[in-house]
Amino acid sequence: QRRGIPEAIFAEGKSAAQVVALAETALETTGRALLTRVDDEQATALRTALADSNPEAAIERRHSTVRVLAPTYDPPELDATVGIVTGGTVDEPVADEAEVVCLDAGATVDRVDDIGVASLARTLDQVDRFRGADVLIVAAGREGALPTVVAGLVDTPVIAVPVDSGYGYGGNGDAALAGMLQSCTVLSVVNIDAGFVAGAQAVLISRAIDRARS
Amino acid sequence: QRRGIPEAIFAEGKSAAQVVALAETALETTGRALLTRVDDEQATALRTALADSNPEAAIERRHSTVRVLAPTYDPPELDATVGIVTGGTVDEPVADEAEVVCLDAGATVDRVDDIGVASLARTLDQVDRFRGADVLIVAAGREGALPTVVAGLVDTPVIAVPVDSGYGYGGNGDAALAGMLQSCTVLSVVNIDAGFVAGAQAVLISRAIDRARS
Amino acid sequence: QRRGIPEAIFAEGKSAAQVVALAETALETTGRALLTRVDDEQATALRTALADSNPEAAIERRHSTVRVLAPTYDPPELDATVGIVTGGTVDEPVADEAEVVCLDAGATVDRVDDIGVASLARTLDQVDRFRGADVLIVAAGREGALPTVVAGLVDTPVIAVPVDSGYGYGGNGDAALAGMLQSCTVLSVVNIDAGFVAGAQAVLISRAIDRARS
Amino acid sequence: QRRGIPEAIFAEGKSAAQVVALAETALETTGRALLTRVDDEQATALRTALADSNPEAAIERRHSTVRVLAPTYDPPELDATVGIVTGGTVDEPVADEAEVVCLDAGATVDRVDDIGVASLARTLDQVDRFRGADVLIVAAGREGALPTVVAGLVDTPVIAVPVDSGYGYGGNGDAALAGMLQSCTVLSVVNIDAGFVAGAQAVLISRAIDRARS
Amino acid sequence: QRRGIPEAIFAEGKSAAQVVALAETALETTGRALLTRVDDEQATALRTALADSNPEAAIERRHSTVRVLAPTYDPPELDATVGIVTGGTVDEPVADEAEVVCLDAGATVDRVDDIGVASLARTLDQVDRFRGADVLIVAAGREGALPTVVAGLVDTPVIAVPVDSGYGYGGNGDAALAGMLQSCTVLSVVNIDAGFVAGAQAVLISRAIDRARS
Amino acid sequence: QRRGIPEAIFAEGKSAAQVVALAETALETTGRALLTRVDDEQATALRTALADSNPEAAIERRHSTVRVLAPTYDPPELDATVGIVTGGTVDEPVADEAEVVCLDAGATVDRVDDIGVASLARTLDQVDRFRGADVLIVAAGREGALPTVVAGLVDTPVIAVPVDSGYGYGGNGDAALAGMLQSCTVLSVVNIDAGFVAGAQAVLISRAIDRARS
Amino acid sequence: QRRGIPEAIFAEGKSAAQVVALAETALETTGRALLTRVDDEQATALRTALADSNPEAAIERRHSTVRVLAPTYDPPELDATVGIVTGGTVDEPVADEAEVVCLDAGATVDRVDDIGVASLARTLDQVDRFRGADVLIVAAGREGALPTVVAGLVDTPVIAVPVDSGYGYGGNGDAALAGMLQSCTVLSVVNIDAGFVAGAQAVLISRAIDRARS
Amino acid sequence: QRRGIPEAIFAEGKSAAQVVALAETALETTGRALLTRVDDEQATALRTALADSNPEAAIERRHSTVRVLAPTYDPPELDATVGIVTGGTVDEPVADEAEVVCLDAGATVDRVDDIGVASLARTLDQVDRFRGADVLIVAAGREGALPTVVAGLVDTPVIAVPVDSGYGYGGNGDAALAGMLQSCTVLSVVNIDAGFVAGAQAVLISRAIDRARS
Ligand SMILES: Nc1ncnc2c1ncn2[C@@H]1O[C@H](COP(=O)(O)O)[C@@H](O)[C@H]1O
Ligand SMILES: Nc1ncnc2c1ncn2[C@@H]1O[C@H](COP(=O)(O)O)[C@@H](O)[C@H]1O
Ligand SMILES: Nc1ncnc2c1ncn2[C@@H]1O[C@H](COP(=O)(O)O)[C@@H](O)[C@H]1O
Ligand SMILES: Nc1ncnc2c1ncn2[C@@H]1O[C@H](COP(=O)(O)O)[C@@H](O)[C@H]1O
Ligand SMILES: [Mg+2]
Ligand SMILES: [Mg+2]
Ligand SMILES: [Mg+2]
Ligand SMILES: [Mg+2]
Ligand SMILES: [Mg+2]
Ligand SMILES: [Mg+2]
Ligand SMILES: [Mg+2]
Ligand SMILES: [Mg+2]
Repeated sequence: QRRGIPEAIFAEGKSAAQVVALAETALETTGRALLTRVDDEQATALRTALADSNPEAAIERRHSTVRVLAPTYDPPELDATVGIVTGGTVDEPVADEAEVVCLDAGATVDRVDDIGVASLARTLDQVDRFRGADVLIVAAGREGALPTVVAGLVDTPVIAVPVDSGYGYGGNGDAALAGMLQSCTVLSVVNIDAGFVAGAQAVLISRAIDRARS
Repeated sequence: QRRGIPEAIFAEGKSAAQVVALAETALETTGRALLTRVDDEQATALRTALADSNPEAAIERRHSTVRVLAPTYDPPELDATVGIVTGGTVDEPVADEAEVVCLDAGATVDRVDDIGVASLARTLDQVDRFRGADVLIVAAGREGALPTVVAGLVDTPVIAVPVDSGYGYGGNGDAALAGMLQSCTVLSVVNIDAGFVAGAQAVLISRAIDRARS
Repeated sequence: QRRGIPEAIFAEGKSAAQVVALAETALETTGRALLTRVDDEQATALRTALADSNPEAAIERRHSTVRVLAPTYDPPELDATVGIVTGGTVDEPVADEAEVVCLDAGATVDRVDDIGVASLARTLDQVDRFRGADVLIVAAGREGALPTVVAGLVDTPVIAVPVDSGYGYGGNGDAALAGMLQSCTVLSVVNIDAGFVAGAQAVLISRAIDRARS
Repeated sequence: QRRGIPEAIFAEGKSAAQVVALAETALETTGRALLTRVDDEQATALRTALADSNPEAAIERRHSTVRVLAPTYDPPELDATVGIVTGGTVDEPVADEAEVVCLDAGATVDRVDDIGVASLARTLDQVDRFRGADVLIVAAGREGALPTVVAGLVDTPVIAVPVDSGYGYGGNGDAALAGMLQSCTVLSVVNIDAGFVAGAQAVLISRAIDRARS
Repeated sequence: QRRGIPEAIFAEGKSAAQVVALAETALETTGRALLTRVDDEQATALRTALADSNPEAAIERRHSTVRVLAPTYDPPELDATVGIVTGGTVDEPVADEAEVVCLDAGATVDRVDDIGVASLARTLDQVDRFRGADVLIVAAGREGALPTVVAGLVDTPVIAVPVDSGYGYGGNGDAALAGMLQSCTVLSVVNIDAGFVAGAQAVLISRAIDRARS
Repeated sequence: QRRGIPEAIFAEGKSAAQVVALAETALETTGRALLTRVDDEQATALRTALADSNPEAAIERRHSTVRVLAPTYDPPELDATVGIVTGGTVDEPVADEAEVVCLDAGATVDRVDDIGVASLARTLDQVDRFRGADVLIVAAGREGALPTVVAGLVDTPVIAVPVDSGYGYGGNGDAALAGMLQSCTVLSVVNIDAGFVAGAQAVLISRAIDRARS
Repeated sequence: QRRGIPEAIFAEGKSAAQVVALAETALETTGRALLTRVDDEQATALRTALADSNPEAAIERRHSTVRVLAPTYDPPELDATVGIVTGGTVDEPVADEAEVVCLDAGATVDRVDDIGVASLARTLDQVDRFRGADVLIVAAGREGALPTVVAGLVDTPVIAVPVDSGYGYGGNGDAALAGMLQSCTVLSVVNIDAGFVAGAQAVLISRAIDRARS
Repeated sequence: QRRGIPEAIFAEGKSAAQVVALAETALETTGRALLTRVDDEQATALRTALADSNPEAAIERRHSTVRVLAPTYDPPELDATVGIVTGGTVDEPVADEAEVVCLDAGATVDRVDDIGVASLARTLDQVDRFRGADVLIVAAGREGALPTVVAGLVDTPVIAVPVDSGYGYGGNGDAALAGMLQSCTVLSVVNIDAGFVAGAQAVLISRAIDRARS
């Protein structure tokens, strides 16, 4: 664990066999494995292989993020809450990546989905809940306005994650990235779809807060 | 007047002498002159020349937009209200361009400035006022989220105008343009800083409504 | 129905099962379902599922746009005509998206296809017909000159839709988008292939005209 | 004269003294000098210097293009007509560059200005005149639709020149270049503002026609 | 036949059935059909369909370009030679598109392949041959230097065609397009892979020469 | 003070008179004024005006950032240390912007300049010092590798600031921005030259830590 | 062998049959064949064909690079060492391309993998080894900082190879290319994934050194 | 001197006073100063200051590159020849930067100017001379084809330098950079106008050759 960040396996572009091998090694050496960008074929291969090699391991999958825990694994504890907010359905796999990283580090996660700015009333309903978090991750695609609106309402540090969605000019997360970098409120930003990085940065901030608490 | 759109003189890149000559010709042939992208030198030259050639003409200037009216000019009437909304100070010259075009066509203009999404409370305070307009022009720079938020709150057609502001990635109006084209509410868009086009399109819609009214 | 805009299901990137579930829910709760970007597999799954669950529902498909109406559905009425114009065959699916949105809102649609500027005589033949509409949607790909030419000939507000076509520099709708934003006539623009947005904006303008009429 | 193309001095970025020296050398060695992208300071320096060194030379200036002819210069003859067409005032300096190159090679030039597609009636009025040329150069800025429209009306080869104009997305000639490369009629294209190249290519085609005539 | 340019069917993105139907209609009404961007499946479908419907038609295929001639077809004649030059193997399908258009218009074609500038000796060997053509089409990918080098050696007008090849920065024909637009010799350019446009422009120039000859 | 972020005046693009007026208002209403992107002319005007209107105010200037404090101003206190690191001289004005924001909020700042990765020994010498901070801001231009290297060495959250420097491809901060978003260590990023945003985000994180401490 | 660079077959975009034919010709005429960008299908076809036609040929494959040697082939000798360094697993196929070119020319290769800057300690461990090479090739993806760090530590000429990896802004090797061109140490650069070019350039430098040695 | 590369002062963006101070310090501590991107004002200030402080120092200026040598300075020796080639006048200041770096390191420089590919005969005349160099630097703007042509004719390693020239699409050195990265011969490349980097890389290669010679 470099810098105390959960080591993850980036499955995209790897063969199912490579992914299985890397996961089994991680499981054996650290008691857990965290995998991002896992497709269906890789997930099935992993399930099949682990049924054989580690039948007692617990496998959690959220969209393309997978975590495997050995029965003996002793999870870390972290006294901090990360709020995770999404604008719409398409943002959820990216938010899941962030959420699993935070949970893996022992943080409490408070997740609020589908409150994009096109339905502002739903956004405003959640303001008090946002204020309860120590750090906020806000993922949004298309025009990516949600982090700006949320950050204008709270004192909490906001990490904005642009999500690959939309079509035409500014599609594939570009408008969202540009809008977050141009935000007229205070945000810091990670790359398009970089849920893992947002989660890991939230963990680093949470650890600093946890250290200050104790 | 092609298509009933106020004929305007685009002053940028022209010499002061050319601008004066074009304005005087417009004044003589149509009783009015509308000029956009006028700089200080051109404006001064115009004032000086008109003091001599048309001492009774009324000169109105808002930032870089100038309108000159002969005393005999009989303005058109248009039974429609155009709402014009800006996010911040930097958007005002662009909104002025749109406003003068609408006024020149005889429309009523209801203008609301400086209610960018970073101060959402101010935005929300104006919702009822927005609803009173027949068509809305919303100008915003930086991340350009304001038209999306406004359009999510009203039934009125919204014309979004990205404004050249901000710096770095997505600066000079690019993030705003991309965000408006990606908007998760319904908008139509004009080019960066194209206040004139937004105003003229609002006039065309207003005329259609005016015809329906009478 | 947010802002009175027909709620649509964006099928692209969803599984056939998700699309079916969303459509069935929409049908049950609102009496109709409108789907855009539906591919053959999704359309077949929908037809099969509805044959079972809603055998009396009427299914209309135009290219990738699908509308399903319950027998009891009472369609809205709207006293306004939207003209929809395309340059060539490749623009038709995008225009269909716009057309279905307008029809769904109760507007009258007058559609003219395949009159791109390379055969200018055909374009000019339609001028009187364009003038009969309350609002015009003009879809064109490649160099996207058609909306500029049409808007130069009529007083009607024009919404321009750039279409993803062409190859090489400026391909995939980029030249068309840029040309429409640079148009030397008055247009407002939606994103590349955003037939849905153009249709919905035409509906908002039509409703304003309809309100003025009554 | 490489490839029989008029050798020209590209003045942009050179000092007035360098420009004068290059022009005087050209005049002495070839009896003429052709200069493009000449600014006011360079032009004045040239006039002053030539008044002294070559008082009998004839100096022609059109916007930023300058040609100097010694009294003894024996101009070439070319039996071909180049039509040169512009959309608006901003295109004229670029068309001038092309025109001077053609005239310098001895071609007949038929020039038609200010017939952009926003006033289509004016464009259509000129169709017969276009048909009289052996080759056409069409310069247009903004959305650059004019070459497409002209090429759709005639059998003559058309060389399209995008002109640096417009602002915002697609500004500075980019939309025009992209639109001309995407044209749904048949065109070949030169770079933005490359009036010199368009003129020289028209000369090469004219020479081929002239050779065929004789 | 608009502007005397061979009407061609652009097969890309159409179903095999659509392509067959369009080709059969062209064959019946004009005695020939010209198809570009035909893939293997479309070509096979065409062959099968024509074996049945037009068993005596002659089918010529060069890479993705297909021409079908009815036995009764009376080809046009054109007294001009188009030289077609390629840099490497990857440029050949694009050059084929141009060649078939020229042949279809009755021009003589002189084709020289695989003389890219990396083997300059081969390029220089062909100079005299280039000089025999009335107009030259030069297709090149990667850095696209071949048209510049060829145009520096001859007096013939050169139409440059950038070809989609290469990888990384400037790949997919972008470096070639940019280099041709920046060429320090005189060229006009068509879009990336636009062999059809280059061929059609060469035909328009050839016709002007042919008219001058007769 | 929205969200507890120091309210700052963005001087760029404003007249000296506007800047003076805004600063005097801030000083009178809040006891301090913070100005960014102040040029020499604006700074001189400010000094002159304040000498008259607020002779006892303290004026601090670091490059283009200026802070003015009324003698009665009671600064906030914040129990947290922000480390600020730069790669080279060109990064200093941007880092100054961040530093003044942090100081203004009451944080302790530990600043280390000129340790770019080209002299890795100097970078490594500072590792222990970096570890003492609660949050790190790392500003770097050109290839922007410094934040990646620093973040690989410590557990502290790192906010990376790309700086507008370099020339050619990737110049003006683009390579640095892209490299920071692609970093193989964990970073969050602000826009090019956005020292203010980096400082304000560091303040929000510091406040969370400060709250946890107390 | 043009310029003494190993002639290679670029397999991408060629059919398996074409690749086999080119390889067999190369083998027969030069005693060896070098193929880059070979996919699994092409590699299998090659193996099958050679088993028949050249059963004694030795086939070496590293990722997508394949070399075939006839038993009689007499390899060149080159007294120089090329160091090849990679940041991570994803860089290996690109480095393999470079390595095979160097080995094919007879150079000694010293390869060090997986020492990206996120684990700087591993990088620093290898410094003495880097210093032993005559020329260094450093391949890195994502932010591409490794060549900058390595070049800051040694006197050897470094050829930097950006690798297509990463996602979002700056993905696909763009951030790495830009960062290497902006490097604050001295590097020369080849295109994204151009392992072949880097290897060949290292061979040219090695030959110059070898000539100087003898 | 890091890595044995001549330490240079990058004058662009520094005040004349800063440049003078840095140059005087370099002169005092190392006996020489090398400055790049020096403008007229900075050069005059330097001359004036040195006349006073170091009246015996020798000042060499080539365009924007300046070298100052103390009378006692003992220059290094390097047994290697760097060939430096330019396409046209506009490339000379960039080549000068490279040349001064090479001379400063003690290398022999063989410089050939103005042999761009538009006049191929001039290029071919120099081939034997190119072959005499140990390493070649080739600078070219516009389409940047010269390094490709030169590298196709010799065995020497070529470092290509794209030069900021041209206008329109691909202007400012972009077409040249892209073309060099796509070159179908073997090259390594530095950034646009990076004459200093090209010179320094040539020095590193020359030193390796010099070490091998001795
Ligand atoms: N989704 C992700 N986005 C960015 N980085 C990731 C992601 N998942 C894993 N990583 C990082 O990538 C490294 C693993 O890459 P690899 O060796 O290719 O599996 C880990 O050390 C993580 O820091
Ligand atoms: N073709 C389309 N283009 C843009 N927006 C669309 C399109 N179709 C549906 N929408 C919008 O997308 C929303 C549905 O997205 P989803 O929840 O992903 O199905 C609807 O509320 C529509 O406003
Ligand atoms: N406006 C222009 N655009 C493109 N090329 C030009 C232009 N004017 C002159 N040239 C070319 O540039 C060369 C002169 O460049 P220079 O040596 O810099 O004066 C001439 O041989 C012409 O081919
Ligand atoms: N991976 C590669 N990247 C760049 N150039 C290559 C590569 N592999 C081979 N080449 C070059 O491409 C030429 C062969 O291309 P082709 O004729 O398409 O097989 C060879 O002469 C090499 O110079
Ligand atoms: Mg959203
Ligand atoms: Mg705003
Ligand atoms: Mg069209
Ligand atoms: Mg025009
Ligand atoms: Mg080539
Ligand atoms: Mg740095
Ligand atoms: Mg790396
Ligand atoms: Mg050149």
